[in-house]
Formats: sequence, C-alpha cells, structure tokens
Amino acid sequence: MSSAPIKIVVIGGSAAGPKAAAKARRMDEHASITIIQKEANLSMASCGYPYYVGGVFDDRNQLICTAAGIVRDPNFFDAAKRIDARVLTEAVAIDRAAKTVTCKHLPTGEISVIPYDKLVIATGATPLYPSVPGATLSGIYTLHSLGDADAIRAIRDEKKAQRAVVVGGGLIGFEVCEALHLAGIHTTVIEKTASILPFLDPDLARLVSGHVRSFDADIITGNGVAAFLGEAGQITGVKLDNGTELPCQLAVVAVGVRPNIALAQAAGLTIGEQGGVDVNDFMQTSDPEIYAAGDCVECTSLITGNKVRAPYGDIANLQGRVIGQNLIIEGSATFPGITHTGICKIFDYTVGFTGLSADQARQLGMDIETVTIAGLDIPPYMQGKPLISKMVADRQTKRVIGFQCIGPGDASKRVATVAMAIRGQLTVTDLVNADLPYAPPYSLALDHVISAAQALENKLLGRMHGLSVTEVKQRVESGADCFILDTRTPQEFEEIRLGIGETLIPLGALRGRFNELPEDRNREIILYCRVSLRGYEAAAILQAHGWHNVKVMEGGIMAWPYPREK
Amino acid sequence: MSSAPIKIVVIGGSAAGPKAAAKARRMDEHASITIIQKEANLSMASCGYPYYVGGVFDDRNQLICTAAGIVRDPNFFDAAKRIDARVLTEAVAIDRAAKTVTCKHLPTGEISVIPYDKLVIATGATPLYPSVPGATLSGIYTLHSLGDADAIRAIRDEKKAQRAVVVGGGLIGFEVCEALHLAGIHTTVIEKTASILPFLDPDLARLVSGHVRSFDADIITGNGVAAFLGEAGQITGVKLDNGTELPCQLAVVAVGVRPNIALAQAAGLTIGEQGGVDVNDFMQTSDPEIYAAGDCVECTSLITGNKVRAPYGDIANLQGRVIGQNLIIEGSATFPGITHTGICKIFDYTVGFTGLSADQARQLGMDIETVTIAGLDIPPYMQGKPLISKMVADRQTKRVIGFQCIGPGDASKRVATVAMAIRGQLTVTDLVNADLPYAPPYSLALDHVISAAQALENKLLGRMHGLSVTEVKQRVESGADCFILDTRTPQEFEEIRLGIGETLIPLGALRGRFNELPEDRNREIILYCRVSLRGYEAAAILQAHGWHNVKVMEGGIMAWPYPREK
Repeated sequence: MSSAPIKIVVIGGSAAGPKAAAKARRMDEHASITIIQKEANLSMASCGYPYYVGGVFDDRNQLICTAAGIVRDPNFFDAAKRIDARVLTEAVAIDRAAKTVTCKHLPTGEISVIPYDKLVIATGATPLYPSVPGATLSGIYTLHSLGDADAIRAIRDEKKAQRAVVVGGGLIGFEVCEALHLAGIHTTVIEKTASILPFLDPDLARLVSGHVRSFDADIITGNGVAAFLGEAGQITGVKLDNGTELPCQLAVVAVGVRPNIALAQAAGLTIGEQGGVDVNDFMQTSDPEIYAAGDCVECTSLITGNKVRAPYGDIANLQGRVIGQNLIIEGSATFPGITHTGICKIFDYTVGFTGLSADQARQLGMDIETVTIAGLDIPPYMQGKPLISKMVADRQTKRVIGFQCIGPGDASKRVATVAMAIRGQLTVTDLVNADLPYAPPYSLALDHVISAAQALENKLLGRMHGLSVTEVKQRVESGADCFILDTRTPQEFEEIRLGIGETLIPLGALRGRFNELPEDRNREIILYCRVSLRGYEAAAILQAHGWHNVKVMEGGIMAWPYPREK
Repeated sequence: MSSAPIKIVVIGGSAAGPKAAAKARRMDEHASITIIQKEANLSMASCGYPYYVGGVFDDRNQLICTAAGIVRDPNFFDAAKRIDARVLTEAVAIDRAAKTVTCKHLPTGEISVIPYDKLVIATGATPLYPSVPGATLSGIYTLHSLGDADAIRAIRDEKKAQRAVVVGGGLIGFEVCEALHLAGIHTTVIEKTASILPFLDPDLARLVSGHVRSFDADIITGNGVAAFLGEAGQITGVKLDNGTELPCQLAVVAVGVRPNIALAQAAGLTIGEQGGVDVNDFMQTSDPEIYAAGDCVECTSLITGNKVRAPYGDIANLQGRVIGQNLIIEGSATFPGITHTGICKIFDYTVGFTGLSADQARQLGMDIETVTIAGLDIPPYMQGKPLISKMVADRQTKRVIGFQCIGPGDASKRVATVAMAIRGQLTVTDLVNADLPYAPPYSLALDHVISAAQALENKLLGRMHGLSVTEVKQRVESGADCFILDTRTPQEFEEIRLGIGETLIPLGALRGRFNELPEDRNREIILYCRVSLRGYEAAAILQAHGWHNVKVMEGGIMAWPYPREK
C-alpha cells in the first residue's frame, strides 16, 4: 500500500448504509469503514415487521440475521466484513470543512469525532404523526423500528387488545391491518382522503376495500383523526373528524414518513423540492465527497423525469450498492431512477402497481388511454384465480406508463413483468406480442398482461369504447337514458347479477334479437359480461349493425365494486 | 354494404386458426368466415392434456369450453361468432389461381370446394415418431390430440399400466412423466442426447434430473429407442440402443414435432430453411392472399434475427390475432418475433427459460459472459424456496440475452421478468437497478433477478472469477492442484458438505487464518458456500491479500448436482 487506506463513514445502519459499506468493503479490502447507527440493531429486515407482528413467524432473530442464521450485530460486521459498526450511536454533526462527523454514544453520552474521506448519509425517515389531542397516550404506535414491532407483537401475544385502529390507508396501513387481524384483533383502518391506497385508481381501490371488509376488518375513508381518547394515560378510542368515536386498545399510525434531513441540512447540503436530500445519478449530494441514499433522499422518476421520494427497502439497497462502488471508484456506478413499483399483500389479495395510475398521469397533464380488464391468472381447469388490472399508456408514444393489478391471483408476476416493460420503454404494441413463459400451471395461453395490452390497443385504435364501473354506476344513479345489456348466459344471470336495469341477451343469441334493442341508434348502449370479453364481442356486433353509441363496461362484473342484486 | 363481404377460409381449428377467425369476425361483422378442421374438436386447450391425464382435473369438457363453460363446438362458433366451423373435414388441396380450397368431409367422403378471398393456413404439426421395430404395437402413444389424452387418461383410470416409458426428455416428455407419476405409473424418461431439456445448460439440467429421480421416476440419457417390444400386438417393453430392455405397458413418444406443410408445399408456397411455412412479419406467406400461423410456420428470433420454429400454444394465439387483423385491414398488424421463452412444471420444480442458453449462444458464435446463482425467492422467514438461475449476456453490448431459472421457488415470475427485459433489449446494468415489486410475501429486497444481474455485472467487470460446478468436479476428478475452501459455518458444514477435499474456514474467521491458505500465491483457490455469496466475499478478501488465482464456484452447494459426502 503506497497511500493510506480511504476512510469511509456511513451514517445509518438500516438498509442503504450497510449495503454501501459492504459493497465498498468488497471493492476495497483495505478501506477503513465505520457505520454509525442510532438504533441498537443493524440491517433490520424492516419490511418483515408486519409478518412478525401478525405471527407469520415467531423467531424475532430472523429479522436481523443472515440467510445462514448469523445475527448481523457489530461482531458480525467486524468478523465477516471488517466494518466498525457502532450501534446506539448518533451522528450529531457533520463538519464538511474538517471532514469529520461528531458522534454521541447514547448510553454514555460520550462524544467522538470521526474523520472521513468519503461520507454516506443514510439517515432514513421518521414516521409522520398526527398533532392531535391525546397523541402522547400509551397504546399508540408506529411500525417503524424493531422496538415498535416488539411492542405490538407483545400486545398480540398477551392478548392485550381486542380492537385496534390503524390510522392511514396506504401500504403499511393495510399490512398492519392484516397483521392485527391475524393477531385476532378487530381492526378499523381510517383514511383521511376519499380513497385508500393512493397509487391505485379509485375503482380498483374500492375492490380492495370490499375484500378487506369481507374479513371483518373495517375501513373508513374521507375521515381523519380528530383526537386519541384515553383514560389513565392509556388509549381507549379514536375520535374522527366527523365525531365518530371508535373504541380501541391499540392504535397504529401509518400516514407516511418524512426524510431525516436535519443532519444534511445543518451541514449545508442541498435539499430537494420533495423534501429529501438532493443527489445526482451517482448518489452524490451537493458535496461530492458526501453520498446519500435510502429514505432520506429524492430520486428521479424514469417515467416523468421528475424528482420523487421512494422510501422503499429495495430502492435503498439498490442505491446503497451504487454508492459502495462510487466510494471506491468515483463515478463508476449510477442509479438512474425508479419506475414507481410496489406491492403488498392484503388478506387474500395481492395489490401491486408499477408506473403511474391514471389519476397520477392526468394530474401531470399527460394525454393517456387506459383500460381495465379482469381475468384469471391460470386456466380454470388449473384452479385459476381472478386478477383485475388497469393499464395506462401514453396516447402519443403508445408507451405503457402504468399498471395496477389486484386480486387473489398471482399479481406479483404480472406487475414485475410490466415493471420491466416500462423500464424498457415498451409500447402497447410490443406487449401485445410478448413472448412470455406459458404452461397451464403458470399462465393462460395469452397471459393477463398480454390481454390487458390487447384490450388497451383496441381502445387506442378506437375498436373499443369503454366505460369504467363507476361511470356506469353514475349513469344508473342519475337515471341516464342508457340501455344496459348483460351478454352472459341465463344460468350465469341466475347466479350473479348486478340489478342495474340491465337486459339479458346472451352473446350467442344477440344476432337474432336485435328487435329487443333500442330503436334509436344513437342511444347509449352499455354492454358487459363476467369480464366484458363477450361484452366486447357483442359491442362489435352492434356497431356493425348500426348502433352508434356502444360502450363496454370495462372489467365486467368482476370489476364491479358496488353492491349487486345477487 | 356496397361490396360483397370478404370470404375468409381458415384451415385448422386448434389455436392459431380459431384465433384468426374470431379476431377477423370482431373486425368485420359481415365477412364470410369458414374454419376447416380435420379433428372432431375445436379450440382445444392442448397444453392442458398432461394435467387431464394426470388427474389434476376430471372434467374433460374443461379442455374444450370457454371460461363461461360453453363448449366450443360448431354451434358455439355459429351462434357466438357467426363462423362456419366444419369439423371432421380435411382440406385436401388449395388452388391459388382459382382461389379455392377443396375439402373432404371425413365421415362421408363428400368433397366440397370453398372459394376464398383470403386464406389462413394453420395446419399445425405432427408428432415425430421413431421408425424402429415394434412402432405399430398397441400401447404406444403421443400426447398430441384430445383422442391421445382420452386414451392415456383411460389407461390411468383403468389402472392398465404399472410401468411406462416416455421417449424424449424435452418439455412435453417431462410433463407426461409427471402426469404418469401422478397416475401411479412408474415412469422412465429416455433421452437420446447427453442432456435432458435442451434449452437448459447441462449443469441446470442435471439438477432437474436429480429432482425427478427423487420422485421415484427414472431418467436415462444418451440412449435412444432401438425397438418397442411386444406380445400379441401389445407393448411389453422398450429396448434401448445399448441393449437395455425396460419392461412397460405404456410408452409415450415426445420427441418433437414436424410442421404440417404438405398442403402449403403442394400449393407452391415457399417453405423456409427450418422446414416451416415461410411468412413475413404480417404472417403472410409467399402468396400475399394466404396467411399462415402456429406450429406450421417459422418465425423470427428477436435475439439472433434467425428464422426459428416455435411450436407453442401462446405463440400460435399471438400470431392468429395478428392475422385476424390483417385479413380485414391488410398490413395493420405485425408479429415481430419470439424471444425463446418457455416453462414447465416438473414435479415440485418449475423449469423456465427465456432467450438463449450459454451453449446455444456459443454455438452461434456469440461472445458471452454467464453467471449461475442460487438463492431464495422470498425471505427465509416467509418460507422462501430455492431458485437456481443462469443469466447470459452479450459481452460487447452487455445486453441480457438469456436466462434459465429452475427450482421449487417461483421461477415463473423471474422468467417473465427477464423475458420482458430481453424484449426491451435491456443491459445487465439496467437490470442491476431494476425497480421490481418488493414486499416479503413476493420477493427478497433484492429480487433473485437483480442478484443474478449484479453477479453477472461483477463478472463482466472482472470483480468475480467463476467456475461452474462441473468445472470444479472435473478439477477434483482429474486431481488438479487446487485449494478448495468452504466458507460456511461449522454447523452448516456438519449438516451438509460436498466432500471434495475442501477446507472449512468460515468467512468471519478468514482474515485471521491466512496461514492455512496456500503459500503459493498463484495456486488456484476455489471458494464456495451455500450459494457462494460468502464465497464471493471471501474471494475478494483473498485477492486483496495477494492470492492471484481465486475463483468462486458459482451457485455454491445449492447448484451442485453431483453426489455429496453428506
């Protein structure tokens, strides 16, 4: 060694930090690497907390150990990676001129000053918390730290709560809801905005709501927390903005996070418009010797080009690995950005998304076309399960820019598939002819993703005119003068029906029963079937026979989230 | 209607033909559309036959009915689609000058001549069959027609066979093997070439063989059928090239198919070098009024640009839909080609692939880099299951051009993901930072696909030097002077070990035990662990400390397909 080893300091020991440190070590055996971690644990599998809380597994060590079963404590980091991991230690100041970090050992209060050549800020985020009366009562948690998980798991194990309220109807809120349900606790999710799961368009979100309610869990939307109620310092209920009081012995707050930027800000680093530390594609802050990653930064949307926050564990790991390389070989790796991909399990539904929802795209002023379809993941004879999806494309470029997929079927695979298509900037036309792995245990001959693209192509080409279930519902409620046609078989109609004033004419009989259709060829005709494939075929027939205002209710009965006649 | 309706004739009623007909109908309500089908059934879900044979489901109608339960017979085609579907009718000649198809109704021998404006040839393929003594004995089947499925299912139901031989170790061969195993029949698969499943590289194929053998099914490779043996016209055994006789009461031949091109050839249409009907991207034959699709055509590989045959049900459907559009609006749709994607379930393994294997790419003279990795699909605490994968990239462009993924884990999702990446011509670097749907029920924080890409990037950048399990085996067998290092824990070593002369030094102890390593810094050191992640970390350490010839056994113990000490 001719030159002294590089000194690397990493602030944050959860996801991005340890990843950057470990990758830097693999790149340079001689570097001096220190991790400063405020919490007691390192490299926690924090996305696993809800499953530990819910009792999906019991061994808490699984959240903090390697695949080989070794706990990732400071000894492990020292022995396996020769990384000096200092836990229960808070970085309190960065001196960029002196290139030092001042740290405080929390149990002793001891202060140390650590010099660095390169610094990594991976300080994560802090859960948001409503500033309402009663917010300091006992029994109100977030599920952010391992300590939170321990506490809520203890409530489960000791059967201390019969009723819980989850504040916030996003990903974490519903993961917690399911966990508490598994723990035998009756749970109500409250969401301030009109719709749960903001990355889903409302029609799909409504289907998820219906599914959650079918499990004896409740959801209240359009209503925030006015106050936490309590007795003797202990929570006894939640009062909503509309005055409703929900009794509970436990509340879990999951209304998002804010990036921990105080340290970066105090050091004079640039903070972005989204409130996170600003970084370039190398994950470098405005000080080129300082990198940042994970929940505390902003990154680029590969779809819009805008800066966004993406506080997800997988992104933190990807970014950490990029930093690890750049710490040792400057400029050797980039993190180009994200495609807004996410997923969660909500009872028996998988809820996944990638890219933009229709609402998000419209809010950005994009000119889009969308389609909603329903279908099975694998053939009926292989016990296929339903999926309901919405695909969004840019109308000019025909690029697929968004996909939402929910249901008991394998949505995870379809979301991963489209996520990669979006990454490859593929068009609807590319997806229409995708060569995907087909065998009956895994897919229909035309996979759900391909069917969605084909339907979307039909709409882009003007071959299909669609209405959403909600548009149909609005027409029914407003007494609009439309003719509604169910094209299924009488047997199917006997088993399930909407009861929205529809006429039943099975597709196979349609050509012989034109006399039952509106004489006014301009009257709006709305068609559907179970999934609206027959509805679409019927629409083509009617258009060819001179009805001019023919529309398909997209996704059919399977996408209908409202009450049915039967 | 000012002009007479277009007359469309479709020869073939299995997959591509009905799809083309149905799409044409949706595009043009007034077209005259006739399907000529030699068999008794239409639109059979032929990929489902093995699952019917194996008893996964019992209602045979599920193979020929719509999702709504309506059998796709001529009445259905007439009523729902106004398509004249003539079954048990063979097209015997095409007169391109007169634009007619001559047909023979098989039960009556009646001849009819049907005029066309546009013709579709979707005549499918015929199973290959070995020309060996005894080939006409009873009890030898292919699994190609619904009649075949009925016959083999009857053998299952009537318990007529205790032992079976499957001739051919490809996709269908192993689907049949599993079906017969489910049916309680002891089955041996024989494969003429040295390795089963030709789309897999041999190391992965060996892992599949081991899995199949663990289910009391047998595999014999490098050995073809010399003769079928019989008594009283009934099969009693199969004699192999090496003289081995395998007693059996049932043989199923699955050695591939040849395209049915006789009709096209007799009509003077161009046949391609791969033996299929030659078509352009519009699926037009050398006669622009005649289209062709499905198992009887060749199509383009999007990876090599070469013409290939892709006799798969999904491809037939995609091509049929393209033709349906072009029949009505000429030149309105294209089928650009395939990416060599396929999958099958083999007992508890999923075996999937997309793009080229390493062997295929090398045979084409491509300059590639590959990596083999092993890992879990989801976290250990969620009961993750193993996957073993091989990823192949073009060394110059860094594009991913192939991916094989096998194991009890969810390989289907990973193959679909990479299939789409290949379609998008993404590079290893793109995949390294892919934004995929992450939550513990669905993925590791870094999905298996991303880990594969990261390992491949490490190899492309020279950060990792790998050996395949077979290269290591060869070194051990030849007594090569290499030093083999297992970097797991003593506990893991007690449970499972290879016993190939390895030394155990846990990763965490390595830096303190350099004195146990070869003094000769140029001696080859081979490292591994369970999946060779710790092996890779250890390799980086040794390289940094002056050992110059350090290699990682890719995929570790999980990828080792040979016998182990324990």
